[in-house]
Amino acid sequence: MERRTFLRTGFAAGAATIAPVPLQGMSWLFDPRHAQDGTIRLSSNENPLGLAPVARQAVLDGREEANRYPGASRRALLDVLAPYLDVPEDRLFFGAGSTEMLRVAVQAWSAPNARLVLATPTFEDVPGYSRPFPYQVDAVPLTADYAHDLGRMREIVDSSAHPAIVYICNPNNPTGTLTSSADVDAWIRASSDRTLFLVDEAYLEYANDPGYWSAQPWTADRTNVIVVRTFSKIYAMAGMRLGYGIAHPKTVRRLQPFLTRNNPNHMAAVAAIASLGDSELVGRSVGVNSRAKAILHGCLDDLGLEYLPTHTNFLMHRISGELRTYIDRMAEAGIRVGRPFPPMLEYNRLSFGLPEEMERFAETLRGFRSRGWV
Amino acid sequence: MERRTFLRTGFAAGAATIAPVPLQGMSWLFDPRHAQDGTIRLSSNENPLGLAPVARQAVLDGREEANRYPGASRRALLDVLAPYLDVPEDRLFFGAGSTEMLRVAVQAWSAPNARLVLATPTFEDVPGYSRPFPYQVDAVPLTADYAHDLGRMREIVDSSAHPAIVYICNPNNPTGTLTSSADVDAWIRASSDRTLFLVDEAYLEYANDPGYWSAQPWTADRTNVIVVRTFSKIYAMAGMRLGYGIAHPKTVRRLQPFLTRNNPNHMAAVAAIASLGDSELVGRSVGVNSRAKAILHGCLDDLGLEYLPTHTNFLMHRISGELRTYIDRMAEAGIRVGRPFPPMLEYNRLSFGLPEEMERFAETLRGFRSRGWV
Repeated sequence: MERRTFLRTGFAAGAATIAPVPLQGMSWLFDPRHAQDGTIRLSSNENPLGLAPVARQAVLDGREEANRYPGASRRALLDVLAPYLDVPEDRLFFGAGSTEMLRVAVQAWSAPNARLVLATPTFEDVPGYSRPFPYQVDAVPLTADYAHDLGRMREIVDSSAHPAIVYICNPNNPTGTLTSSADVDAWIRASSDRTLFLVDEAYLEYANDPGYWSAQPWTADRTNVIVVRTFSKIYAMAGMRLGYGIAHPKTVRRLQPFLTRNNPNHMAAVAAIASLGDSELVGRSVGVNSRAKAILHGCLDDLGLEYLPTHTNFLMHRISGELRTYIDRMAEAGIRVGRPFPPMLEYNRLSFGLPEEMERFAETLRGFRSRGWV
Repeated sequence: MERRTFLRTGFAAGAATIAPVPLQGMSWLFDPRHAQDGTIRLSSNENPLGLAPVARQAVLDGREEANRYPGASRRALLDVLAPYLDVPEDRLFFGAGSTEMLRVAVQAWSAPNARLVLATPTFEDVPGYSRPFPYQVDAVPLTADYAHDLGRMREIVDSSAHPAIVYICNPNNPTGTLTSSADVDAWIRASSDRTLFLVDEAYLEYANDPGYWSAQPWTADRTNVIVVRTFSKIYAMAGMRLGYGIAHPKTVRRLQPFLTRNNPNHMAAVAAIASLGDSELVGRSVGVNSRAKAILHGCLDDLGLEYLPTHTNFLMHRISGELRTYIDRMAEAGIRVGRPFPPMLEYNRLSFGLPEEMERFAETLRGFRSRGWV
């Protein structure tokens, strides 16, 4: 059995017997509509403010050292980020976006009969990375209020004697909703090392709710918690590919050989250092996000289109009719909206742009209503 | 047995039983001497010319889209690189440096009892990435003329019924020497799919020898050849982290789920596109490299210090005495030279800098001789 699962991912039987891994869920990465053609991008949860002015300057200056391996800029980033987070540097690790942290966790914890327990819908990268490995993937529907169903997830973990990764995306992508941090804490407190908690906090800085906080403190003593963060969202650096993980030093050491070496790239490192030094950056990003959200809420309320409460830079709203048709009509109107997130195919995920972009979206949506499309 | 090897890399037995993977061979990445302190860096095979002017401009312009995921710049890079290499785009894949290509090959081909056959000394990243996996690593000494000992490597592969990765770094790092491409071709021609040839051509553009050519043509029909290239060397983009692989489309599909998603980063992509459009870039890099090499050869000949013939942007030369002492003395003189590459501890690896930097190195080395240090 172990041998069979190994063979499935391995080489031994020759290439002819190895089925190519399907790329479903990745094709949108290559969508030519990503090109710069004047389309408004409300599709990928990007920060519409763009690089902070200090980061723009850092990139300009950083060109001088772009021919050198990034050891020095990595060192400098650690020197800034560790005190910023109040975490010793041996609990930090970097990657090309938070997605690299997710990749290494999935790879390093792979074992025969291991479970991967996650929500549906949630961020697709974790199940994507698990495909070549012998994980049993359990996708648990969100609760009625769009939280992770921790009770059901825990039942699955407890029903098995095998190791498990529990992926908790909090706030959750694509729903924008929260899972009670107290409930997450309770489970972690009661857990054994057999269960790895992979907690994705990509949208942490947008959330402002008394029931929500980071899982970071657990990494001081627990080896079974990995917290994942990114510079793609609040810091507007999605193109530069910089994420970081926080974990116990033992866990960092276990993950290290799975990381691509010589990360992070120099330009991302210098832009991040500069951005962390801009004390108003987070406030600016949150502020423009709130204004965009208010415009969108107003429009959806006017049209009577239900939407989920959001703690991020996007939300899910109801559409009527077929989602693919809706997406195509928006594209024809010059607006890229979210991709389908099964099983929630009666909802569109919309990322927040600049206020003027949200006004244009609102106007377009009202036009759809006037034609009976939503 | 399979279960035991799986457990070694897995999670099942609880974290306490899992030995942390040693980080030997990685510590130099975090060496504080990588900092910008006026030291001459002749240590990491970087291109001293820095980013090409067109790439510098591309980075400046690229800041406008740095908040967006790199789908569009990836698309644009494929549109330029595929015709440049005369390779259909389904045979290309990108990563954060050529090291990511090496990582995914090692990970995707892992299987119980698989062999990893490589030279010693050679580039350390491949054995580094193999550590968590159940590879049997066979490090085969170079021949008397510092080529890969393909005969001995082939005996090892043929003596086993198990799959194998054969890593061929050509030209070889750290020696700068070539392995006959005709001999490589002969082995590939006779090989079965059980043997994966991972051919690292990071220094391809520096080599100019009638017995040397790329293994790229094999990827048209063979699924068991992966060619790895980089923008770090001839294109002077080491800090920006961009490499690419060339392989059969089936092989690309097999590697894909091991790659970090959303690669490459936007800044590297736009810099690479611009650099590929600069028809004089390769010539400039080769030219300055030749001048540096001539200065160094002159000095080493004067001092009677033996050196290996090089087809790259570095060479290995003899020292007398202890290598660590030599490295430290050079550092005190403000010159970072190569790290130790066992078993060749009677040699220093020296990367080529600008001609004026090589003059300073030569002067320093003559000073060492006058003190009896070399």
